[in-house]
Amino acid sequence: MGMTMTQKILASRAGISQVKEGQFIQANLDIVLGNDVTAPVAIKEFERMGTTEVFDRKKVVLVPDHFTPNKDIKSAEQCKMMREFAMIKEIENYFEIGEMGIEHALLPEKGLVVPGDVIIGADSHTCTYGALGAFATGVGSTDMAAGMALGKCWFKVPGAIKFVLKGKPQKWVSGKDIILHIIGKIGVEGARYQSMEFVGDGVHYLSMDSRFTIANMAIEAGAKNGIFTVDDATIDYVRAHSIKPYAVYEADGDAEYSKTYEFDLGQIRPTVAFPHLPENTRAIDDVGDVRIDQVVIGSCTNGRIEDMRIAAEVLKGRRVAKGMRTIIFPATQNIYLQALEEGLIETFIKAGAIVSTPTCGPCLGGHMGILAKGERAIATTNRNFVGRMGHPESEVYLASPAVAAASALTGKITNPEDVA
Amino acid sequence: MGMTMTQKILASRAGISQVKEGQFIQANLDIVLGNDVTAPVAIKEFERMGTTEVFDRKKVVLVPDHFTPNKDIKSAEQCKMMREFAMIKEIENYFEIGEMGIEHALLPEKGLVVPGDVIIGADSHTCTYGALGAFATGVGSTDMAAGMALGKCWFKVPGAIKFVLKGKPQKWVSGKDIILHIIGKIGVEGARYQSMEFVGDGVHYLSMDSRFTIANMAIEAGAKNGIFTVDDATIDYVRAHSIKPYAVYEADGDAEYSKTYEFDLGQIRPTVAFPHLPENTRAIDDVGDVRIDQVVIGSCTNGRIEDMRIAAEVLKGRRVAKGMRTIIFPATQNIYLQALEEGLIETFIKAGAIVSTPTCGPCLGGHMGILAKGERAIATTNRNFVGRMGHPESEVYLASPAVAAASALTGKITNPEDVA
Repeated sequence: MGMTMTQKILASRAGISQVKEGQFIQANLDIVLGNDVTAPVAIKEFERMGTTEVFDRKKVVLVPDHFTPNKDIKSAEQCKMMREFAMIKEIENYFEIGEMGIEHALLPEKGLVVPGDVIIGADSHTCTYGALGAFATGVGSTDMAAGMALGKCWFKVPGAIKFVLKGKPQKWVSGKDIILHIIGKIGVEGARYQSMEFVGDGVHYLSMDSRFTIANMAIEAGAKNGIFTVDDATIDYVRAHSIKPYAVYEADGDAEYSKTYEFDLGQIRPTVAFPHLPENTRAIDDVGDVRIDQVVIGSCTNGRIEDMRIAAEVLKGRRVAKGMRTIIFPATQNIYLQALEEGLIETFIKAGAIVSTPTCGPCLGGHMGILAKGERAIATTNRNFVGRMGHPESEVYLASPAVAAASALTGKITNPEDVA
Repeated sequence: MGMTMTQKILASRAGISQVKEGQFIQANLDIVLGNDVTAPVAIKEFERMGTTEVFDRKKVVLVPDHFTPNKDIKSAEQCKMMREFAMIKEIENYFEIGEMGIEHALLPEKGLVVPGDVIIGADSHTCTYGALGAFATGVGSTDMAAGMALGKCWFKVPGAIKFVLKGKPQKWVSGKDIILHIIGKIGVEGARYQSMEFVGDGVHYLSMDSRFTIANMAIEAGAKNGIFTVDDATIDYVRAHSIKPYAVYEADGDAEYSKTYEFDLGQIRPTVAFPHLPENTRAIDDVGDVRIDQVVIGSCTNGRIEDMRIAAEVLKGRRVAKGMRTIIFPATQNIYLQALEEGLIETFIKAGAIVSTPTCGPCLGGHMGILAKGERAIATTNRNFVGRMGHPESEVYLASPAVAAASALTGKITNPEDVA
């Protein structure tokens, strides 16, 4: 029986020739990831196991990004615990602030994830790495602990939904609009415990940064993982960033999919998800008059260089609306530096935006832009659940960097076509 | 009887010809300042007074800088309250993030404070503006409320201590070393309820930024205010930043001082204040071996362009020590932009430092770099009290940007001469 992309990777890393949906397998892990919120819990579990060493000092990755630079004493203690664990266990891929970034932007940039990898991370957006043709999924801290100790993890093999992307997106439409549009169609449980497999000629029109955004939000449709077919752009990216060996797995011709969807990318409009679910999407043409208080551009979803460039293209030579709090977070130090060298940071500051050092910040209600009661933000982040960015009576609208930047200029949700 | 600089300003703004130490006077206010921590309390008091309008919409200044970008829901609500008050009362000098900075760097830059002004601010470092030959002092939120309503404040006229500064400072010695050296000599109560009046030929060797740093820390010696003689550099600064009328007051020849100190600036060494008081100073040559975990360069004390330039001069082409958290905060958006244009931000990022948007941040244990138990920071901030930057068992060492940057490179407190 034919296997999907995900199934072929899992079979390979489990050392067996064939897997099928629902089967339990144990696969070898290429990367085990944790952050300052989840790793401390995993470290306690790890120590309870009585294991003295991690399975591979190169394959455990620890990134303090959620509440850093340390928000408070509690987060400082969490970071300290993770830092000391990394030192004692001689973990090579611990990234201190100054050499770091948001984990899901950082790992591909550092060449730590490549096609064919099996990656677990104690963070739900670990699915981001599927953009590179890897199997990557979020796990709990206990699984992370076991992964750090053993280098293996149990998985129930997921079925898959095929997403055939066709054609070329319109100007101002990027990965974010596409994944919001898809989630709007299938719903936040539309891919529950399935692999979302993205194929079709439309993929070639998507930058790697757009693919990262799409794979990143697979979890927002309930998927086990999201994964892209590997093309020349993928290989170019991997060769530019990594010296790790990689393996490309494409689905068999007779692979079974629970569903197949086709999307004509040329028909997708800039898309906004209204409160309080990513599935509450509207095309920009139908958003109506929505006044906003804050704009957030960044996160593991949309803090990459393409996102910075798009935001700068909209903001260049203009000024954000009076009183608008516009907060821009390049996702890594390298992206920050590149944006600096390209003049994007200068564009942001001159436009009246502020630029933060990389952090998950307000995306999860952490810090650096929390909302008061009744306030509204438009954000390029990934979730708009009740209270996600602050007060339970605040609201988050999800959108692309282009829409977010255009909205910063006017003070209400705005089509970038209308200000460009 | 002759009057001091401070006394002459107070007499002028009280509309009387003569004041003396200990006298109670009521003076007209040129600026009434509050921030996101203190203004909400003052606003509640203001509303309890039944006053409907502030005394002057141009003379009330509100700056959200302490816990911004909003650290949490509580700080978001505080900022919201202040923002709404500013809108309703049509306060012209409310500065939203994106157009703002740390209050005591922002007000001089915006031309809001000039020589001869009487300024109260609900923040202890309001004394900063004394660098411009103004009388500026910190007050409680209730005084701020009364000031907003009436444009007047009661003062007990302070006596004064004269600080005669002579000669030219050594390379790597700036305002911070001078004020730390002075506080080391006179103690944290050495100028209790006195005006610290800085005069002498040495003043002319000090940049305006160094003078702001010195005046800023007058409160750390217990002073009511710090004030500098006005020279050409002051006038140049004021003309470049402000269109407000100003008045220069110099002390009478027979003014009475409770004490006079002379300091030969050429003899002052880079100076560090050890925990847990600013008076615990040591010359850099005597600091010994002090390992540090975090470097903080910024704040209302040392976040100005000169400070950024000095830090960049030390860090340029180098890399901070492995694992060192080096956090740099330009104090205003304008300083950030200027640092960007001069290539300083690029130097910082390439050195492995992170650059934050303007905020008081870790200086007062707010956010953006809080210390865990047992951690040590060297900081260009103004206070190193127990728990000031986080855990009660953490430590803060106060120093200049030069010493802080040099320490970032080595991981222990370091003389900039040794790495330059």
